Amino acid sequence: MDLGISERLAPLLAEVKRFVAEEVLPVEGEYLAEVGNGDRWQFTPRQSEIMAALKEEARSRGLWNFFLTDGEAGSGLNTVEYAYLAEEMGKSHIAAEAFNCSAPDTGNMEVLHKYGSPAQQEQWLKPLLNGEIRSAYAMTEPGVASSDATNICTSAVLDGDEWVINGEKHYVSGAGDPRCKIMIVMVKTDPDAAKHVQQSQILVPTDTPGFTNVRPMNVFSMDDAPHGHMHQKFENVRVPKDNIILGPGRGFEISQGRLGPGRIHHCMRAIGAAEKALQLMCERSVSRTAFGKQLARLGGNVDIIANARMDIEQARLLTLKTAWMMDNVDAKEARVWISMIKTAVPNVSIRIVDQAIQMFGALGVSQDTPLATMYMAQRTLRLADGPDEVHRMVVGRNELKPYMASAMDSVNATFRDG
Amino acid sequence: MDLGISERLAPLLAEVKRFVAEEVLPVEGEYLAEVGNGDRWQFTPRQSEIMAALKEEARSRGLWNFFLTDGEAGSGLNTVEYAYLAEEMGKSHIAAEAFNCSAPDTGNMEVLHKYGSPAQQEQWLKPLLNGEIRSAYAMTEPGVASSDATNICTSAVLDGDEWVINGEKHYVSGAGDPRCKIMIVMVKTDPDAAKHVQQSQILVPTDTPGFTNVRPMNVFSMDDAPHGHMHQKFENVRVPKDNIILGPGRGFEISQGRLGPGRIHHCMRAIGAAEKALQLMCERSVSRTAFGKQLARLGGNVDIIANARMDIEQARLLTLKTAWMMDNVDAKEARVWISMIKTAVPNVSIRIVDQAIQMFGALGVSQDTPLATMYMAQRTLRLADGPDEVHRMVVGRNELKPYMASAMDSVNATFRDG
Amino acid sequence: MDLGISERLAPLLAEVKRFVAEEVLPVEGEYLAEVGNGDRWQFTPRQSEIMAALKEEARSRGLWNFFLTDGEAGSGLNTVEYAYLAEEMGKSHIAAEAFNCSAPDTGNMEVLHKYGSPAQQEQWLKPLLNGEIRSAYAMTEPGVASSDATNICTSAVLDGDEWVINGEKHYVSGAGDPRCKIMIVMVKTDPDAAKHVQQSQILVPTDTPGFTNVRPMNVFSMDDAPHGHMHQKFENVRVPKDNIILGPGRGFEISQGRLGPGRIHHCMRAIGAAEKALQLMCERSVSRTAFGKQLARLGGNVDIIANARMDIEQARLLTLKTAWMMDNVDAKEARVWISMIKTAVPNVSIRIVDQAIQMFGALGVSQDTPLATMYMAQRTLRLADGPDEVHRMVVGRNELKPYMASAMDSVNATFRDG
Amino acid sequence: MDLGISERLAPLLAEVKRFVAEEVLPVEGEYLAEVGNGDRWQFTPRQSEIMAALKEEARSRGLWNFFLTDGEAGSGLNTVEYAYLAEEMGKSHIAAEAFNCSAPDTGNMEVLHKYGSPAQQEQWLKPLLNGEIRSAYAMTEPGVASSDATNICTSAVLDGDEWVINGEKHYVSGAGDPRCKIMIVMVKTDPDAAKHVQQSQILVPTDTPGFTNVRPMNVFSMDDAPHGHMHQKFENVRVPKDNIILGPGRGFEISQGRLGPGRIHHCMRAIGAAEKALQLMCERSVSRTAFGKQLARLGGNVDIIANARMDIEQARLLTLKTAWMMDNVDAKEARVWISMIKTAVPNVSIRIVDQAIQMFGALGVSQDTPLATMYMAQRTLRLADGPDEVHRMVVGRNELKPYMASAMDSVNATFRDG
Repeated sequence: MDLGISERLAPLLAEVKRFVAEEVLPVEGEYLAEVGNGDRWQFTPRQSEIMAALKEEARSRGLWNFFLTDGEAGSGLNTVEYAYLAEEMGKSHIAAEAFNCSAPDTGNMEVLHKYGSPAQQEQWLKPLLNGEIRSAYAMTEPGVASSDATNICTSAVLDGDEWVINGEKHYVSGAGDPRCKIMIVMVKTDPDAAKHVQQSQILVPTDTPGFTNVRPMNVFSMDDAPHGHMHQKFENVRVPKDNIILGPGRGFEISQGRLGPGRIHHCMRAIGAAEKALQLMCERSVSRTAFGKQLARLGGNVDIIANARMDIEQARLLTLKTAWMMDNVDAKEARVWISMIKTAVPNVSIRIVDQAIQMFGALGVSQDTPLATMYMAQRTLRLADGPDEVHRMVVGRNELKPYMASAMDSVNATFRDG
Repeated sequence: MDLGISERLAPLLAEVKRFVAEEVLPVEGEYLAEVGNGDRWQFTPRQSEIMAALKEEARSRGLWNFFLTDGEAGSGLNTVEYAYLAEEMGKSHIAAEAFNCSAPDTGNMEVLHKYGSPAQQEQWLKPLLNGEIRSAYAMTEPGVASSDATNICTSAVLDGDEWVINGEKHYVSGAGDPRCKIMIVMVKTDPDAAKHVQQSQILVPTDTPGFTNVRPMNVFSMDDAPHGHMHQKFENVRVPKDNIILGPGRGFEISQGRLGPGRIHHCMRAIGAAEKALQLMCERSVSRTAFGKQLARLGGNVDIIANARMDIEQARLLTLKTAWMMDNVDAKEARVWISMIKTAVPNVSIRIVDQAIQMFGALGVSQDTPLATMYMAQRTLRLADGPDEVHRMVVGRNELKPYMASAMDSVNATFRDG
Repeated sequence: MDLGISERLAPLLAEVKRFVAEEVLPVEGEYLAEVGNGDRWQFTPRQSEIMAALKEEARSRGLWNFFLTDGEAGSGLNTVEYAYLAEEMGKSHIAAEAFNCSAPDTGNMEVLHKYGSPAQQEQWLKPLLNGEIRSAYAMTEPGVASSDATNICTSAVLDGDEWVINGEKHYVSGAGDPRCKIMIVMVKTDPDAAKHVQQSQILVPTDTPGFTNVRPMNVFSMDDAPHGHMHQKFENVRVPKDNIILGPGRGFEISQGRLGPGRIHHCMRAIGAAEKALQLMCERSVSRTAFGKQLARLGGNVDIIANARMDIEQARLLTLKTAWMMDNVDAKEARVWISMIKTAVPNVSIRIVDQAIQMFGALGVSQDTPLATMYMAQRTLRLADGPDEVHRMVVGRNELKPYMASAMDSVNATFRDG
Repeated sequence: MDLGISERLAPLLAEVKRFVAEEVLPVEGEYLAEVGNGDRWQFTPRQSEIMAALKEEARSRGLWNFFLTDGEAGSGLNTVEYAYLAEEMGKSHIAAEAFNCSAPDTGNMEVLHKYGSPAQQEQWLKPLLNGEIRSAYAMTEPGVASSDATNICTSAVLDGDEWVINGEKHYVSGAGDPRCKIMIVMVKTDPDAAKHVQQSQILVPTDTPGFTNVRPMNVFSMDDAPHGHMHQKFENVRVPKDNIILGPGRGFEISQGRLGPGRIHHCMRAIGAAEKALQLMCERSVSRTAFGKQLARLGGNVDIIANARMDIEQARLLTLKTAWMMDNVDAKEARVWISMIKTAVPNVSIRIVDQAIQMFGALGVSQDTPLATMYMAQRTLRLADGPDEVHRMVVGRNELKPYMASAMDSVNATFRDG
């Protein structure tokens, strides 16, 4: 169980670190400052120029599509290796996109790569892999507990050669981006089927009539424009029959396959964020003086720093082992590990970012440090892709399974999950 | 030590609850929705109209200036009694202003009432008590740890009959409000004096030449427009010699007198916020279903609700006892109690709001519940008016004092604070 | 809601403090050192002598039976007043007994005072009030979850004029004491009755044939000899029909009446223990040096001390308010408050004792400080008289009640408790 | 960085698991029940017989001296491999000794193996490796903070060909064992030397005149007889000059080398204990019913179980990585990792054991489950071999080092440690 930095990874990792430090971070401030310069939901010419240059440069250096573990289409890195890279990307707000490794596109590309038809791949996967367009994944719905996927009620009904889709989605991340051309939409195609085969996933181009982004949803007071977390309406949205992925009733199966790697990536980026917060906290603690002392020498501040280091190391190792499980054991066993990190890691990154805020005083919640934005992003992770509560239930249920034996059936009654 | 609801308070409290429920909450949504309708830093006519009507109605019913414990100028309530009212105001974003009880005006009015000259009172206290103008308190400075008040370096130099002020302040709350006409500014008038008599407090009208609001500071991603938390510059700002309050070198003394009640009010409003979050959490937990069960019946949710109740009750009692200390013992002893609540209470309200967010899922961080805004406000309380760390140090030092005896002098070397 | 020290209490409180400091603490070490000097389950002559002298002196000064709020038989103090005294007793291992205020006798005396027949009172209450004998309360049973009182299965069957009792009890505190002459035993008299009227409470003298103390149960590795927490067997134990208290089926009702005050007393003694631990921690932190500094100046130690102070103040106020509720509102409402303190307070005292242990290093777990014993006692409180989990459920259920409305019936199905 | 179970380890691990399950656990109860059967500080014949048989069997199967990574004298396993075995031993109170892998002998054998002279090895290492005698390590002293090793004040003065030792030690684990024949004693040989070369380590046979075990020290209320944690006196204890290990002034250096592996072993056994507690908790939660439900389905119990699993996995990975660092990087870098696990791991095992206690109710603190004993042992780990506070300081200081640059010297003044 090698969780270290492999020989082939070492130079790549160094290169990614250098790229983030030398290419991305110097322009990140300017890029972000452009948001809201005019229409919040369009890119300014300067923004487009910055990102295009970064992507071109990254791609030309071979720093591209790391996330795709298939060697032909992607990088051929295994998940442990990619994890180390994702951590670095987590230290910047825009680095992931520069390497064409940003959510939700990575998950969508995986879905299309694994499950898409040749035609679907040609039309949508190709431009995504080229970084020419962006995409969204419409899953969560207002009004129901989407953590229980069986609750989803956006409907798709076959009418001749077309699916007719009706319903609402919200918190569809990235759907605000004017470059977002395609969405994978989770729908209910057969309400009368067995619980886990009622759902399907259908490709819906964003210019399809009947589809509208109703409004941006906030995370805290951020709208994350122009990326956005959109509230959407589907009113008699018609797409060709072939836009379904894998076929009717396979939606739940696809989302199981999709969410695993995505959660590992989220967690590794969260660790990158935690590392960055710890770095900022350390810098602050030695450079700021109060009551005649460096903050580092006041009260329990060194303890806070020490605990942060211990928590990060543990969270990283757990994530790396999960990545290793993803690569080396069957998906079902890996799933419990994914639920572990999805619960454990964001709680670590949130705590450390929060403590960094405290160390910075008012500056910590201001626009002059990245901490407040990091806080809001990390806090949202405890809700996105399944709240802690659901993942903890998965872990607890799995732990109890061997003790339950024949009592298992009745337990399942209690512990039904998605 | 009567911490209960007194006979004279009971009807007032009922009236305030009713006013908040029947007059304030029904228009709060509309009021807040108007922000950013045009210039974020001006009130729309509709906003002005709503607030004017609330204030007029509240004042006509005698629900006005509760905070001022002097019976002639204010309500004559004691601090325990006011605490109960402040809690109710904490459940709304705008109720406190309707009763002319909102920060930072309350603290400024107290300062002017206790320490202002008759001329200062006539010119500034009177319109403040009438709710005609608003005010700000410029204390914190960028670049230094303002929790240690001796660090303050905005200078005021006497030049003939005028003070000439130079320096920067930030996080000056309420200074963005176009109705804000007067500021109390903490300045250093004698850098060579003993540490605690270097500072003075000077009245600076907001239209004084040389003064500018440089930019709004964010708390998380909110600018709190039009109230605002402003970054300010003072460049050769000249005000009459008589604008000093109490006299040169009394600034530290005034701020001690000012901050005590203000912190109690903050804490009671925080408890109001915690109660509101708990209420929302309970409502959600019985109305939302996942995995075939009410949230209230899933996992540890009932435990979370029970713990919230216990934490709130303890925090409220501690705050009420502190209020009682404020009224019944000398200020020095009360100060330790104030440091206790200033540390303990916001941590409770933050935790409960955070748990409510979790219970609401994505909706908890959205604009569709008040929770995200509440979170950002409560979290900021751990930094405002002295970070936890400083208050905890005050409490710890006080606890150790009797054990230190002759070792005291050397300890003071360690525990210097403002 | 006066939670302060009343005028009549002030001199008593001072007297109790003085008595504990001057009479009890100086002999406590010797008293405890005698345990195990010969038969662990008998008192040595020296132990008997010490305790007899303390009791005589306390009684002669009128420091006696404070716990009994009835003015004629007892002290006439209200529960708030007694709470302050109980806190002082909690700072010593043997003080409570010196004032004839120790568990489980206090609860038993209350039961006999409130519910006992004149004959029962003459025979058992009188010598208990005189401190001549001691008693036990046999409730918990091995093998079932006794936190759910309906689980109790020791049976009592009427056979002519006698109850015939069969079953097992364990963790019967005080039953090891050779002076323990009488037990109140919770039994099931009617297994077919409605759930809450199946139980009765019956007086069983400890010399009744068929009754045996099987073995002492440990709390951690302590047997608490000679007090003891006994595992008991009842094999055809026969007692007169009139030994039943109040009558058949009233057992549950009696235990509700008994446990309330007992839990308040436990909590106030826990606060006394917490205060003592904090005192020891402070003394240690200023007298011990490591790495060239007093412990008080190292790392987060001052923060730990400050947090302990804040936690104690909050826990005490919550307990005092609960005591006030006990005196001023109906028992049903007070019961929720009692569940609150029973959950919240021991967690505070445990944490502080644990932190004091840490501050003392190896000495903290040794026999040279009282901390390890205090830890074991406080930790056990989270289990005794209902574990946290049950009390938290009571609090949470009560909080949710107003939100449940008509959904209440089905909720009761989930939240059945004793 | 392979943290998995190596090919050569797999069969050994299986064998150790089987041996613990089939040979050790079946006799453990009887073995422990014999303690106190007569003189607590002697082994009963039955005890001696049980342990002798276990050792003989284990040795004959080659399950012996795993801890010694030198392939010739010991097992040749690396530290990662041994860690997995130590975890298994941590699930039993006596298994480690059966494999001749119990503290403090393992550390002493390492010291003698690495630093002992051929004569010292012949006389003491050989019988220790053969499991014929036992040993102790006398380091901690009453009255000073021994976590700061420079505080040690037991003196050894050269008088002719002999060291004359005077002083007191306490918490010398294993020194109560009648088979304990040799002690390594940390002494101060040159009080005037530079701070870290004042100490030496000297071999003192337990039958040397002038040496006495004064009394057993308790951990909580356990004396751990006959192993014991002894308070010792050295009064003009004379040993040959050659009994010094490595030479004068090398004591600090030796203890650095000794403590590293020992702390890793402690931590892995702690993880074994945590696993056992989790197993007990799971078994209890499915077999116990209250309020009509399995405990596993009540309140937050599943969450507690899930969190325990996540905490254990993280703690284990951190320990395995530390073991790997021990094997693969220089000792100085590994030392920070050791401080991390020494802080992080016992806090995990304590919390889980504590939660298991709560799940068992009164039984959890009784002698009928191993939990109370496990609790006391795990809690003591936060003090033994350096309290959390010191290790946390090491971690925090190391984290801050790169930020401190030239400020480093003054920081060292603050952060002096052993």
